[in-house]
Amino acid sequence: MDIKKLVLAVIIGGVTTTAVAVDKNAVRTQAKMMHGPIPATMPGAEMDTPALIDLGERLYFETALSADGSQSCNTCHRIDGGRGGVDNEATSLGVKGSRGDRNSPSVWNAGFHVAQFWDGRAADLAAQAKGPILNPVEMAVPDEKTAVNNLKEEGYETLFAEVFKGEAEPLTYDNVAKAIGAFERTLITVDRFDKFLAGDDSAMTETELKGYQTFVQSGCASCHNGALFGGSMYMKMGLINAYENTHDLGRFAVTNNPADKYVFKVPSLRNITKTAPYFHDGAVAGLDEAVAQMAWMQLGRKLSDQEVSEIVAFLGALEDTHTITVKYLNSGAEVGQ
Amino acid sequence: MDIKKLVLAVIIGGVTTTAVAVDKNAVRTQAKMMHGPIPATMPGAEMDTPALIDLGERLYFETALSADGSQSCNTCHRIDGGRGGVDNEATSLGVKGSRGDRNSPSVWNAGFHVAQFWDGRAADLAAQAKGPILNPVEMAVPDEKTAVNNLKEEGYETLFAEVFKGEAEPLTYDNVAKAIGAFERTLITVDRFDKFLAGDDSAMTETELKGYQTFVQSGCASCHNGALFGGSMYMKMGLINAYENTHDLGRFAVTNNPADKYVFKVPSLRNITKTAPYFHDGAVAGLDEAVAQMAWMQLGRKLSDQEVSEIVAFLGALEDTHTITVKYLNSGAEVGQ
Repeated sequence: MDIKKLVLAVIIGGVTTTAVAVDKNAVRTQAKMMHGPIPATMPGAEMDTPALIDLGERLYFETALSADGSQSCNTCHRIDGGRGGVDNEATSLGVKGSRGDRNSPSVWNAGFHVAQFWDGRAADLAAQAKGPILNPVEMAVPDEKTAVNNLKEEGYETLFAEVFKGEAEPLTYDNVAKAIGAFERTLITVDRFDKFLAGDDSAMTETELKGYQTFVQSGCASCHNGALFGGSMYMKMGLINAYENTHDLGRFAVTNNPADKYVFKVPSLRNITKTAPYFHDGAVAGLDEAVAQMAWMQLGRKLSDQEVSEIVAFLGALEDTHTITVKYLNSGAEVGQ
Repeated sequence: MDIKKLVLAVIIGGVTTTAVAVDKNAVRTQAKMMHGPIPATMPGAEMDTPALIDLGERLYFETALSADGSQSCNTCHRIDGGRGGVDNEATSLGVKGSRGDRNSPSVWNAGFHVAQFWDGRAADLAAQAKGPILNPVEMAVPDEKTAVNNLKEEGYETLFAEVFKGEAEPLTYDNVAKAIGAFERTLITVDRFDKFLAGDDSAMTETELKGYQTFVQSGCASCHNGALFGGSMYMKMGLINAYENTHDLGRFAVTNNPADKYVFKVPSLRNITKTAPYFHDGAVAGLDEAVAQMAWMQLGRKLSDQEVSEIVAFLGALEDTHTITVKYLNSGAEVGQ
């Protein structure tokens, strides 16, 4: 055994428990192979020009993309103020005062996901961006043409003409979505887990590293896999023990396949500490409770309080540590929300 | 909680252990989503004609493809006699009396793997088939031309001309490999786990189903994932606790990347009960020992004897239950080996 490991054998009620001080190099190798760092750029970003990204950023905060001028993308997926790309509401309030059924997913790292929305019904960021603007319980613009006209009234035509040079009709709904997607591809978190992977032993505490191992050893990594710790596959919510909310049929609504009932995209755990409340319906307020419920529902496993607290400690190392400067926040009505 | 579950709360040394009778429908849903059945056909099989497959089967047993006429593909990857597509040797004996460093992997289901060989150095079955024939410690034919000439002497020219109709030179080394690959694409196991997935409650015992859950809950499914329970990715052998055999550098020899030292393809666990001894060097004779060592090396986890025995029970449900008729076995010198 590695000399760096301190072995403490404790006899508890006839069961031998072995507490091993964490071998940081071993965990680093494990973590690099099992999960790995977040890639430096998102798929498709190679086509994004600075001008397109800047237009997308402006549109991300553009309240003219809602029926009454009160909401922008940022209203529900907040990137200002160090929020985790969400509004921290169980479900979000639309312009007409009603709420949808699902918790707003974070926009951070979203472009790395296999598909968009909880049920994967949009293939990419641009396809996703087209949804909420027209959704009657969200931004509630009646149709694409109205959305485009609203932007024309705000004087966007020149800007679109510059960015989509040579196109016969630069200001289209497709191009709005394209620009928003380009901006969203710049939203990549930076965290201590990746610093640790890069070789910085001080980036994570012993407890957090132990928590990573508990996370893997408990079976969590079967679904929360890859660099995002999720976002790569679909899974039934309540796989072993049913989830209490049986109202939302998940991906079944997209595929019409009975096997997809209660199936949702496995959410990424990067920056999860910032995105409470949890689950597709936002029903769980605390991360401890979310971890314990997940282990029970998905793995049929009752985690001890100690295991839950180790895993939650580890998840803290996935919290975004960088801040961004938000240029266009003050241009829209969502300020002060 | 599901009424079918019998909950027994047992207090052991202050720790509450909950024994739950297995909910078969819940485990079926879990198993279908996490692993799923083996696909009915292998990638590339749609191009394989019956004549090509039959030629491949003949070549699979053809001892003229070894330097001294003593060995065929089947010598090390035995599909006769209900063996699991291996020779059950730690490492295999070549025609010149020497042994390689690695355990012969099973030919069953091989075409579903992400790549071939323990280190993934061959992209597909045909590329793999070209290796051992010319490997000096295996079949040891000096070069491709000699292999082709050996087959000409055995009268294969007419057969190749029929199968590769229209080609200027039908009997080539490439076509030999192509035919062997086509035959190997027919080698797909049938097991009780897949019967259970298909709806047969009696196909697996309670212990085996419990074992499947223990397998997932212990973190094994992080690497042994997908329909093959492996074969889809590469992983370092000795991820947390080093493997004692440090001689074989694994995939490093293929990529020359230091991060690939001791990295091997994760083996499939389908039919694993038939393919002892275990690990890339065949160092471990028993499945119990292999499971315990894997949990310790890859997950840093000391499984209890009970957990090991549950997991091994589950692996029994992955054992191939069908038999094939071997047409060409008696045509070669390996008979009676």
